[in-house]
Amino acid sequence: MAVSLGELAVRFGCELRGDPQTHVERVATLANADERSLAFLANPRYRPQLADTRAAAVVLDAASADACPTQALVCDNPYATYARIASVLHPATGAVPGVHPTAIVTPGAHLDPSAQVAALATIGAGAVVGARCFIGPHCHLDEGVVLAEDVRLVARVTLCRGVQLGARVVVHPGVVIGSDGFGFASERGAWLKVPQVGGVRVGADVEIGANTTIDRGAIEDTVLEEGVKLDNLIQIGHNVRIGAHSALAACVGISGSTTIGKRCMIGGAVGFAGHIAITDDVVITGFSMVSHSITKPGVYSGAIPLEAAGAWRRLVARFKRSGRLESRVKRLERAAGVKSGREEDHD
Amino acid sequence: MAVSLGELAVRFGCELRGDPQTHVERVATLANADERSLAFLANPRYRPQLADTRAAAVVLDAASADACPTQALVCDNPYATYARIASVLHPATGAVPGVHPTAIVTPGAHLDPSAQVAALATIGAGAVVGARCFIGPHCHLDEGVVLAEDVRLVARVTLCRGVQLGARVVVHPGVVIGSDGFGFASERGAWLKVPQVGGVRVGADVEIGANTTIDRGAIEDTVLEEGVKLDNLIQIGHNVRIGAHSALAACVGISGSTTIGKRCMIGGAVGFAGHIAITDDVVITGFSMVSHSITKPGVYSGAIPLEAAGAWRRLVARFKRSGRLESRVKRLERAAGVKSGREEDHD
Amino acid sequence: MAVSLGELAVRFGCELRGDPQTHVERVATLANADERSLAFLANPRYRPQLADTRAAAVVLDAASADACPTQALVCDNPYATYARIASVLHPATGAVPGVHPTAIVTPGAHLDPSAQVAALATIGAGAVVGARCFIGPHCHLDEGVVLAEDVRLVARVTLCRGVQLGARVVVHPGVVIGSDGFGFASERGAWLKVPQVGGVRVGADVEIGANTTIDRGAIEDTVLEEGVKLDNLIQIGHNVRIGAHSALAACVGISGSTTIGKRCMIGGAVGFAGHIAITDDVVITGFSMVSHSITKPGVYSGAIPLEAAGAWRRLVARFKRSGRLESRVKRLERAAGVKSGREEDHD
Repeated sequence: MAVSLGELAVRFGCELRGDPQTHVERVATLANADERSLAFLANPRYRPQLADTRAAAVVLDAASADACPTQALVCDNPYATYARIASVLHPATGAVPGVHPTAIVTPGAHLDPSAQVAALATIGAGAVVGARCFIGPHCHLDEGVVLAEDVRLVARVTLCRGVQLGARVVVHPGVVIGSDGFGFASERGAWLKVPQVGGVRVGADVEIGANTTIDRGAIEDTVLEEGVKLDNLIQIGHNVRIGAHSALAACVGISGSTTIGKRCMIGGAVGFAGHIAITDDVVITGFSMVSHSITKPGVYSGAIPLEAAGAWRRLVARFKRSGRLESRVKRLERAAGVKSGREEDHD
Repeated sequence: MAVSLGELAVRFGCELRGDPQTHVERVATLANADERSLAFLANPRYRPQLADTRAAAVVLDAASADACPTQALVCDNPYATYARIASVLHPATGAVPGVHPTAIVTPGAHLDPSAQVAALATIGAGAVVGARCFIGPHCHLDEGVVLAEDVRLVARVTLCRGVQLGARVVVHPGVVIGSDGFGFASERGAWLKVPQVGGVRVGADVEIGANTTIDRGAIEDTVLEEGVKLDNLIQIGHNVRIGAHSALAACVGISGSTTIGKRCMIGGAVGFAGHIAITDDVVITGFSMVSHSITKPGVYSGAIPLEAAGAWRRLVARFKRSGRLESRVKRLERAAGVKSGREEDHD
Repeated sequence: MAVSLGELAVRFGCELRGDPQTHVERVATLANADERSLAFLANPRYRPQLADTRAAAVVLDAASADACPTQALVCDNPYATYARIASVLHPATGAVPGVHPTAIVTPGAHLDPSAQVAALATIGAGAVVGARCFIGPHCHLDEGVVLAEDVRLVARVTLCRGVQLGARVVVHPGVVIGSDGFGFASERGAWLKVPQVGGVRVGADVEIGANTTIDRGAIEDTVLEEGVKLDNLIQIGHNVRIGAHSALAACVGISGSTTIGKRCMIGGAVGFAGHIAITDDVVITGFSMVSHSITKPGVYSGAIPLEAAGAWRRLVARFKRSGRLESRVKRLERAAGVKSGREEDHD
């Protein structure tokens, strides 16, 4: 879809430095854009590519605009503005009302007539599918699942009994929502299953990445508040609660009954112990292990970057004999008549 | 389903402190229970909620019973007793014999007439499905798969060629059992696939969480013994063997040919190297890396909890320059004429 | 399939020590082989099992041949030779041309007549399926997917819009290729979706393990070069590029826009930050966190093996108070009039 720079500037509140009649058809990277493409500059890492771009126009902020060799759409938040323009140039396909003849809709399910149900989707008794929902191929909605309007299940999504999704939720392939939580009672050396009778409630505007799993609550519900974004291959245990607008990168695991606050940002592969609480506005860098509650907003880390194998081996060996080093220092202190200086510890 | 406290006390061997004619209909948390609900107290963390509960009755042990403001079912193992009562109040749905008209059963498969095959399930040649099995929607059983009685494949489970599941095994959506192990031989700078000709044998009463993957053996079988419980998103490599009644939390990865003993408890995201052996009754806390065999029962750990980012950065910097600190101590020892004290190391 | 040792020796360039007329029917481990089985010895760990093997013949190298109590096929690379022989004794089933009556092929898709499409597979408009491809049950190929010849999608694979797979690619169940990358722009406290308009290109001879996810590019493509091998439950972020013949073990996660070189070997559960570059011929041992680019080939590590819980607790406590130990050493140096010895640091 070709759109003029003038229209984009007006629509998204940019200052246009260039010809309002220039049309762009697609987005591209600074490095590979051509005269029909629109590029953007948000991450300073890509600043060096600006000088040589052949884009029709670049979306960027005022600080970078003077260095732009082509036309520019200048705005305060170039990445967000780029996102909006990209949605115009590359619009998502909406639902085409109707039920594919091979889809299986159990009598007693309620489908809004504007919804689309694709090939081989199965919808259980009592399920409710809202206006303009898209139920992709191979999806399964078990009994009593409720979808608000404009939900998009891309393909092969499994929603277990009674799961509820809010408006505009997007779910990518392979996701499982509402599987049983991991609840077993120990009894005479074996495990006894604890029935998982809670549900899962997902707020509006949540997006859930491929092959992520979200367990149903043991008694009460597992909850994702509005605007939460989950990447791929994330595990959400039973009775977890994630606050509004928090974003979790891939491979994160959250143990049961842990709560994450609002507007948190969790890096990849972070692991959370169960039954802890993370307050609002916490950032956790990737690969950290969170074993205790966090009560103060801020940035937290817990991973040690790798080294060449030999150097790492020596580091680990020293770590393992750190007790001996403390003893040696203590003996030196004794010999020198120096106190151990606990009062100087500022960490 | 409403059940009287008297019946529950008799059936599950509890001491009832209250009216045997009181009926309960559902389970609930201590905090949110009402006069038709049964709650329980097992984790001391929730003890403070006991005083204010409005539950009809609480399942708890003798030590907590006096503090209970409502009726009580007193027993030695409240969590296990709660599990049994919850199964009565919220019974699992059993198989409804029959094959959905859209299921595809290849001629030559043997289905017990009491089994249920749901919509769009596919069952390959030579497969055997035992009495009262439930094959959920979108499941695929490849050729020669064998299920004992009362197996429950919730939905969208893939069992590859020849996989064998024992009685009462429960498998959650998205699980793949019997995919090829990761076997490749290096040859002139490229990888040559090593055929994976072993199978997978899963013992009775095993439960397997959503999107977990279990590879078939390279030559002999991958084995899960009876009563093993696997959480979501776990990876089991080829020729792994997991001993009876071991429980693994989510996101654990076990490399090929490693064996885990009986009654082990493995925390979330623990990783195991290949070709090692973990003895019986080992507990490993979450996020640990297991690179060597463990020969003694006990509790093992290997993760460092996160810190505020600045403090963590200083810790990592000190870790990386630990060699220098050792050198400094050595120089001090030399200057002071003190020995390095190797003999005082007790770790 | 029974094959004579003579034929195997000729076909795979082995020196046969034994009777060329002996026939073998299957592969087996050294420990469990019988007189109709062929075993191999490649990993020195299994050398002790050689003396007692009852295999008809063992594939091994010259250094081990004299210790072999049975017939031997002697070669330079026993594991690769074993792989080739196992492929003869246990041949993979090829595609049986035809489309299952329950498969759904959208008009406008192009299927080579020699391809096989299994039950309940769905193929979107404009998709192209090459010669002798096998599209397993429950697979979904979205619009515009292109498969070269001899691709094998084992079962329940989801290929999103426009994904391209090279010749002989093998994809195991549960894999998702081409799901949206994790791209969101922050705007006034919420997240705005950034359209993901790139694709995924997978080179020839790539194999992808169960439940692995590969995101489509944000603007340009995510790329796996030829011969790459991915194990199960791996996450590949948008715009990642993996060089030819690299092999990644299970549970690895690669953040967006990171590139991995050729012939790299990545251990299980390794995590990569985004926007970094790993050069060719890098080996990273399991459980490492890679936060910076690696520019020199070699072996890298970053994980600390676990300990008995008490010992580990003491190690962590000492790590956390490492600042205090540095202060104590500094005070000792001051008291002794010794310099801090920065110049002696050799790590």
